[in-house]
Amino acid sequence: MKKFVNDPKDFVPEMLKGIALANPKTLKYIPDYNLIMRADIPIADKVSIMQGSGSGHEPAHVMVVGKGMLDAACPGNVFAAPPADFVYNTTKLVASPKGVLHLLNNYTGDTMSFEMGREMAEADGIEVRTVTINDDVAVKDSLYTIGRRGVAGNFFVIKACGAAAEQGKSLEELEAVGKHVVDNVRTMGMALTGCTPPGKGSPIFTLAEDEMEMGIGIHGEPGRKRVKLAPANAIVDELFEAVSSDLPFKSGDEVALMINGMGGTPISELYLLYAHAHELCEKKGYKIKRNYVGEYCTSLEMAGFSLTLLKLDPELEALLAAPAEIAIRVF
Amino acid sequence: MKKFVNDPKDFVPEMLKGIALANPKTLKYIPDYNLIMRADIPIADKVSIMQGSGSGHEPAHVMVVGKGMLDAACPGNVFAAPPADFVYNTTKLVASPKGVLHLLNNYTGDTMSFEMGREMAEADGIEVRTVTINDDVAVKDSLYTIGRRGVAGNFFVIKACGAAAEQGKSLEELEAVGKHVVDNVRTMGMALTGCTPPGKGSPIFTLAEDEMEMGIGIHGEPGRKRVKLAPANAIVDELFEAVSSDLPFKSGDEVALMINGMGGTPISELYLLYAHAHELCEKKGYKIKRNYVGEYCTSLEMAGFSLTLLKLDPELEALLAAPAEIAIRVF
Repeated sequence: MKKFVNDPKDFVPEMLKGIALANPKTLKYIPDYNLIMRADIPIADKVSIMQGSGSGHEPAHVMVVGKGMLDAACPGNVFAAPPADFVYNTTKLVASPKGVLHLLNNYTGDTMSFEMGREMAEADGIEVRTVTINDDVAVKDSLYTIGRRGVAGNFFVIKACGAAAEQGKSLEELEAVGKHVVDNVRTMGMALTGCTPPGKGSPIFTLAEDEMEMGIGIHGEPGRKRVKLAPANAIVDELFEAVSSDLPFKSGDEVALMINGMGGTPISELYLLYAHAHELCEKKGYKIKRNYVGEYCTSLEMAGFSLTLLKLDPELEALLAAPAEIAIRVF
Repeated sequence: MKKFVNDPKDFVPEMLKGIALANPKTLKYIPDYNLIMRADIPIADKVSIMQGSGSGHEPAHVMVVGKGMLDAACPGNVFAAPPADFVYNTTKLVASPKGVLHLLNNYTGDTMSFEMGREMAEADGIEVRTVTINDDVAVKDSLYTIGRRGVAGNFFVIKACGAAAEQGKSLEELEAVGKHVVDNVRTMGMALTGCTPPGKGSPIFTLAEDEMEMGIGIHGEPGRKRVKLAPANAIVDELFEAVSSDLPFKSGDEVALMINGMGGTPISELYLLYAHAHELCEKKGYKIKRNYVGEYCTSLEMAGFSLTLLKLDPELEALLAAPAEIAIRVF
């Protein structure tokens, strides 16, 4: 296993400790619940926003905790949903009088934990609403999912709801913002290689030297098809067609375009992919108002990428443009 | 070759086109010289700062062009120095009355191109100074280098000089800032895997499943030794000792600590590595004033990382803290 790891069972806690040590003034780490939270939360006149999901998708979600983004993230182990008591205890710790928004990528295990955690919190009198994210157009149902999976489009839900929360919007309004993003965002991903969870020690799947998988899930769940490796532009063409025909996006639409790396793909290749995706948008008459190239939702060290399109309106664009602060930063 | 590529000879231009398309208002792309430059350069009362080097180290250097950072980067092909005429023509295009600062990672090919390009520019009456970066403590001389190699510490030279240039400092003052950073920064890297230049189509070196290379260069040049894979903390221990004993750093020193990913290592692992490096600093009595975890200077999709320590003083710390803008960003 070619990874940086000590005892595999410490992989997640050691990563979380690193995030906390790198952000001593702004973040708090509570090891009992794998919890990274803003140090200044709860704030009385602001809804708190939290997400769980499995680890292994960083920066989602523990590294996007910060002002104008998530208030807390309580991930499970690598590719495993957080236990319900992580969700419950995190909800209690972040609860503000204005309530708590749960963001949830649509996987069966996460859904169970979040539903149970929400019920327990509501029994304590905390008001909770949930937005479920299911932007992956690749497959209808999947190995760990009834209905569509939630993948990189999740970033836009966090960003928009995070900005709206800072503006003092109510829990109901935030739920509406989140659902509006979900209604307008579509993603599809693909992989050149598998990846190795530290606790497993071997790849979750393997692809031959001349193979790739189109429509892959972020836990290695099967996609649409396993095919021969193709030139970069042909891969972008196929993802773009699947994503843009799904909403569908139309000529004249204002959009955000995201090329998201899966963890092992260098940023040079992501910009090469972006160039072609940008040109396809122009050809279709979509107006790119915002672009995102980098890692937003990964699968450990998997080589691959996903393409996301989000249909914008002026309100949503302003929420995406609002300032925010997170653990990971260049400077 | 498991890479996103069309025709390998178009790899660099297609990446550069992506950077330009993603930053239409702030950056300009001039294909003749692989040149990415700030759209608002030259500015009469500001020294212009440029760097070349080979491609394949992104974000270094084309993706750190922006206000308060580089004004221009004119890279060669993957792992190849830019031709002297790229350096000359870029110097002419960015030249301001206050002069041009060349930043140069110490490799023989780059040095030759930059010396020749500088001579040609000086013959045109442009004032040029050069800061040579050689922060890699791994080996004294190397495959492509007389003297120490320049690696991820390069980021700090760019950041400090970029900030000082925005303050209106003179060319001589910027040269002094750059040399001051070089005098106080030390790095060592290691690799778990090799990497594949698109034009070559096969790995530049291979490591067995249970092997790693300590002290690797960013073009795959041999390091200090090839050894059995070790736990993450033991690897950090060894790099930290090599780096900290070189300056040497002393108890009470104020430092910046960087964990730089080599391109194929997920950010989860980088934060796990950071946690241990942070604790080693504390044990030694170094005061971490700033930390950097992510990709700053990569080797295509190589799995590996480097550890950098920079000794700070209040002036240098203020330059690092100054605002800056670059092509790659999360939001």
